[in-house]
Amino acid sequence: MSLKLDLVVASRTLAEHGVIDAYGHASARSDKDPQRYFMARNVAPELVTEADILEYDLESNPIDADGRPVYHERFIHGEIYKKRPEVMAIVHNHSHAVIPFACTGVPLQPIFHMSAFIGLGVPGWDIRDAQKGSDMLVRSAYLGEHLARALGKHPAVLMRGHGSTVVAENIQRAVGRSIYLDVNARMQQQAMALAKGERTVVYMDEEEVAANVSWQNYERAWDLWKRKVLAAL
Amino acid sequence: MSLKLDLVVASRTLAEHGVIDAYGHASARSDKDPQRYFMARNVAPELVTEADILEYDLESNPIDADGRPVYHERFIHGEIYKKRPEVMAIVHNHSHAVIPFACTGVPLQPIFHMSAFIGLGVPGWDIRDAQKGSDMLVRSAYLGEHLARALGKHPAVLMRGHGSTVVAENIQRAVGRSIYLDVNARMQQQAMALAKGERTVVYMDEEEVAANVSWQNYERAWDLWKRKVLAAL
Amino acid sequence: MSLKLDLVVASRTLAEHGVIDAYGHASARSDKDPQRYFMARNVAPELVTEADILEYDLESNPIDADGRPVYHERFIHGEIYKKRPEVMAIVHNHSHAVIPFACTGVPLQPIFHMSAFIGLGVPGWDIRDAQKGSDMLVRSAYLGEHLARALGKHPAVLMRGHGSTVVAENIQRAVGRSIYLDVNARMQQQAMALAKGERTVVYMDEEEVAANVSWQNYERAWDLWKRKVLAAL
Amino acid sequence: MSLKLDLVVASRTLAEHGVIDAYGHASARSDKDPQRYFMARNVAPELVTEADILEYDLESNPIDADGRPVYHERFIHGEIYKKRPEVMAIVHNHSHAVIPFACTGVPLQPIFHMSAFIGLGVPGWDIRDAQKGSDMLVRSAYLGEHLARALGKHPAVLMRGHGSTVVAENIQRAVGRSIYLDVNARMQQQAMALAKGERTVVYMDEEEVAANVSWQNYERAWDLWKRKVLAAL
Repeated sequence: MSLKLDLVVASRTLAEHGVIDAYGHASARSDKDPQRYFMARNVAPELVTEADILEYDLESNPIDADGRPVYHERFIHGEIYKKRPEVMAIVHNHSHAVIPFACTGVPLQPIFHMSAFIGLGVPGWDIRDAQKGSDMLVRSAYLGEHLARALGKHPAVLMRGHGSTVVAENIQRAVGRSIYLDVNARMQQQAMALAKGERTVVYMDEEEVAANVSWQNYERAWDLWKRKVLAAL
Repeated sequence: MSLKLDLVVASRTLAEHGVIDAYGHASARSDKDPQRYFMARNVAPELVTEADILEYDLESNPIDADGRPVYHERFIHGEIYKKRPEVMAIVHNHSHAVIPFACTGVPLQPIFHMSAFIGLGVPGWDIRDAQKGSDMLVRSAYLGEHLARALGKHPAVLMRGHGSTVVAENIQRAVGRSIYLDVNARMQQQAMALAKGERTVVYMDEEEVAANVSWQNYERAWDLWKRKVLAAL
Repeated sequence: MSLKLDLVVASRTLAEHGVIDAYGHASARSDKDPQRYFMARNVAPELVTEADILEYDLESNPIDADGRPVYHERFIHGEIYKKRPEVMAIVHNHSHAVIPFACTGVPLQPIFHMSAFIGLGVPGWDIRDAQKGSDMLVRSAYLGEHLARALGKHPAVLMRGHGSTVVAENIQRAVGRSIYLDVNARMQQQAMALAKGERTVVYMDEEEVAANVSWQNYERAWDLWKRKVLAAL
Repeated sequence: MSLKLDLVVASRTLAEHGVIDAYGHASARSDKDPQRYFMARNVAPELVTEADILEYDLESNPIDADGRPVYHERFIHGEIYKKRPEVMAIVHNHSHAVIPFACTGVPLQPIFHMSAFIGLGVPGWDIRDAQKGSDMLVRSAYLGEHLARALGKHPAVLMRGHGSTVVAENIQRAVGRSIYLDVNARMQQQAMALAKGERTVVYMDEEEVAANVSWQNYERAWDLWKRKVLAAL
């Protein structure tokens, strides 16, 4: 399956799971030229078809837009691809359970094995540290680079008042991580409420995280998601 | 697309998102006569077709009802259009996450950029201040005017024991605001629970609100919603 | 529309709203003989058709079952119809948001006008007061009568470890009350969490309740539900 | 209906109820040879057809895989079938409401009659007690046996950082228990939040549990689930 079709599957699967609504976007680095990436033109993710996928350079200029409008926040993708050569796919989203963590600074921790990657660290980012009085959008290479620095070597970064950005070595992993980041946030909030400061919430430990992250590619899930999207197309 | 068709899209989109059920209504000021507005006859929003849309004067008398029953609470719309010449669209709804704020007086605050308009202030209104022993419905011009005064220059007003009313300069903005008001309420409640009085929930600041509200028209979302409703019709 | 078809609409609407799953049942007193009521044979509510509706006497004996199995808990219905001549319809359900109130004794209160009837009082019932060591089901006229006494003159009764039973003067009102009882429970729980004992949750007052309950028949909603069920049949 | 078709119904019903997503699996002991059990090849449960169901011995070796990959965690099933001759069906799942209990040690208790079996005791298991630094998966007979010991004579066991495993004397009971375990967890969390340590949450008592568990086979629900899956196939 082509990278473009993978991005169609990714976009529609994220919408189906409520991780993105009309906003948010998934990209993949080109398998032919590491200085290029693929992402849709400005369109709601659940409407994306292969014909909507454009190629961008790492300055986030579209190569073949033919005048079609592009996402204002494409710089999130270009600037991360510049700094992280091993990253091959990125998802930016506003998933609802995650934002309360982004706005309070309560650290996300890995509550079950499907979201073990959280144990690699999920830092926060406040756009105000880069630009005061913004409209919250990552509208420039400057802001994208600032966000990419906050992400550092981690698999995801929370964006205060906005959402999160998740990265991985391939598309299916970026999609799986985005879905289970949201699931983890909901379950962690519930566990913290149950524990009420009287009990300890037991998270995965470092060794467990390392043992799981090394292979977790969400293969069985990706197979399911792909079938469902292709059947609906 | 005509205003009437826009109202069909608005009504069905609000129902699809659970912001309204069989109750609640969306209206738009006429683009030909600012002393008139359009709104459906008395029918559940998810059933509305163009043929159901009636024209009302600002006293909320239907012009072309032909005996068809109209909403008891049409005065919400007429009285706000009178006081707010720049308002071109209004949504009245009972969205579930918002009512707990209306009944406790906990102020809604903008927790993410999609609901930045909340930073313009969302006052509360208690029908008891206008009429004791009511059935809670805004059944008269007197009650509508009282509510419109509580709304003031703000984008929305919470109604104790009832729901909320949201206004905007166009239909798509009124719909987007209504949907994200509900999303914001859920996320704010979760953030407050996470913070437990020990951490601060960081909301958008005034400058950020101003920078976002100036352009936020929910364009990409409206394009999606419109396509889905038109495909289903 | 016949009472039997009304019960089909009621059963499927309650299932569609998640108020009942495979369990729970709706009944209506016969419009020809007040000593009789109609209710489905033992079948999941979302599968009910007119052919499944049986007639029962007030001892809850089926008249025309032809060997088809009936609900164990039919006595809930028969015993309430005996004690409450004005009651014409009853819904027994396990809706999820209500059971935590039934198991803690926290009183339900009317948080918005769609569930004003809660202001008429919703008492609790513990089967243990009638029979120790039961399997929790209302399997006998004895238990049904005990429950009916706890219900008294109220519109609903909460059943500890089980669910609730809702009554009304017609089917559509019983269905609307069942749906909004669940909505009210969720919103009340959220409002209480928001208030945290530091703020007051403002509920509808007695006068407001009386003004609303006098006419609230969920007409617009019933029209919607009926259309959707009939279209699906 | 054959055991294989029952497993198709079970798998798709669990997915439909959100108890499993792409992960989790249902098995049934062979009705011909108690040393054998049936379970799908490595595939997402909502895609399972009869052709995907393989036979395994109690060492969890597939008999007829023909090279098709199998679930890593099949040892959960084989090791429990070894220790519990009366167990005829097993469901392993990651249902979201249950994991917060597994990670905090707050005991699950039976809050309503549909989940009375919880009153038979639902112990917890931490994989760390068997193997440090695992990837959390039950990938060996050693881990499966360790889990089976923690399960003991109980109907379910919670797995820290992972999910739960539910057993029963037949498939429909294992499916019903899995669904209502999740419902119970959500309602118990809400009841505990409502009670806030100031009120008591009243659970089913031992006698009530015993009276209910003796017959509860989720018959009406199974009939519904079967019809829906067969209609969709």
